[in-house]
Amino acid sequence: MSSFLERFSFNHATAKFWDQSEAIEACARTGSGIGLWREPVQEQGLAATAKQVRDAGVQVTSLCRGGFFTDPTPAAIEENKRAVDETAELGAPALVLVSGPILEGGTLDSAREGVAEALAALAPYAAERGVTLAIEPLHPMFTSDRCVVATLGQALDLAAPHPAEAVGVVVDTYHIWWDPNVWNDIARAGAEGRIASFQLADWITPLPAGVLTGRGQLGDGCIEMRRYADAVDATGFTGPIEVELFNDDLWARPGPEVFEETRAAFARVLS
Amino acid sequence: MSSFLERFSFNHATAKFWDQSEAIEACARTGSGIGLWREPVQEQGLAATAKQVRDAGVQVTSLCRGGFFTDPTPAAIEENKRAVDETAELGAPALVLVSGPILEGGTLDSAREGVAEALAALAPYAAERGVTLAIEPLHPMFTSDRCVVATLGQALDLAAPHPAEAVGVVVDTYHIWWDPNVWNDIARAGAEGRIASFQLADWITPLPAGVLTGRGQLGDGCIEMRRYADAVDATGFTGPIEVELFNDDLWARPGPEVFEETRAAFARVLS
Repeated sequence: MSSFLERFSFNHATAKFWDQSEAIEACARTGSGIGLWREPVQEQGLAATAKQVRDAGVQVTSLCRGGFFTDPTPAAIEENKRAVDETAELGAPALVLVSGPILEGGTLDSAREGVAEALAALAPYAAERGVTLAIEPLHPMFTSDRCVVATLGQALDLAAPHPAEAVGVVVDTYHIWWDPNVWNDIARAGAEGRIASFQLADWITPLPAGVLTGRGQLGDGCIEMRRYADAVDATGFTGPIEVELFNDDLWARPGPEVFEETRAAFARVLS
Repeated sequence: MSSFLERFSFNHATAKFWDQSEAIEACARTGSGIGLWREPVQEQGLAATAKQVRDAGVQVTSLCRGGFFTDPTPAAIEENKRAVDETAELGAPALVLVSGPILEGGTLDSAREGVAEALAALAPYAAERGVTLAIEPLHPMFTSDRCVVATLGQALDLAAPHPAEAVGVVVDTYHIWWDPNVWNDIARAGAEGRIASFQLADWITPLPAGVLTGRGQLGDGCIEMRRYADAVDATGFTGPIEVELFNDDLWARPGPEVFEETRAAFARVLS
């Protein structure tokens, strides 16, 4: 077993329609971590999920997702505080934040200012509960409708005013692989202690028409996975490595099969 | 007539299936410039096209396109030299370069090195003929299959080893609007004398399924066009402003109608 495989974490969204408790069982059997999503956690029950992972000795490596606070209303902040509480109850170190879209009538800059405001409102709350807010830059094809944070460098700049234990970043290969500054930004993220989550997904060509659900299985695309793992490791990061694939074809298949295939692909690309 | 409208240039690709000579006539009637493409120029004939624009007093503001030289073979370099010659014969100041994809069996880095090599091979040839090679960064959703140059900053870094009259960059709002560094990079491009072409197209949400042909009519999306025009102007750039829209809906409509609509949208968003 490679040292990378010991760090494998299966994000539940990779087999989105697989019963969450079965996914947790599969992770327990294989010594894997798991990345969870709020809606399935609610469905199984927060306390029940927390008990299952604790009893099974499965590490919840992240909870998805908070964010959508480009309009940082009191309601949006409250919703994110609930997500922080859930993250803490699950024993997960990080709450993944997808920042949200440009607002109707607003600008890209005003949306980005909203994100900075929301982080300021949430950071102390998260720090008190031992949760790191993990800012996820999304690929720039999602900037207008999903996440105005588009690069790792921008995420680090947004995190900078806050303590690293309160606000970090997600390094997700799918979203950042094209960036000419990516290697410098990964080194910077490590040096600043900001890597709160490390996720893998591949970029396949041609880009599937449904861009939201076209993330490739590891090894099916052009991203140099081992190089990313080595670069992140070189910063001193020794945490879990999650695989999160939004992919219509994977979602149509049985969860156990997707889990095994993904774990095998992970071992292969990092070997 | 606003000073911006006097600088309007209609890229022929905006009405892709409109007869080129008719498009040139429309530009002549309205005092517009025109951006041309190599294939329609070949179809009408290079000498005939050059004669028509000269006689009509229409400025060819750019020729599209060279590039696709991530594998900088002698054949690729020769093809680009021919494109430089055509640009010179049309009296256009700039040849737009779409750099090309990641190669089968190659990496993103090796493709980017290929681009640097190709530029070194072509820059003296272009300079001798009074043509500027205009490196166009494309939106990162095209990095794997079309253009490994993904940001304006990266394009400027690639241009840096060469004289500004030989190698410049394209500032195209559609490709760069999401970039947190875009305002700094535009200022840098101007300060370094590298703005060889300035193009407008809008980003519409949701992103159309055919991402290559989903560029929005000016004003239909989220890009702050006037802010871009002002930022480019503030660098001292006084050249033409091209509108280049790859859009299936526009392509299905009559050229004259698309021309008038585009010119009106241009005047509106820059007013």
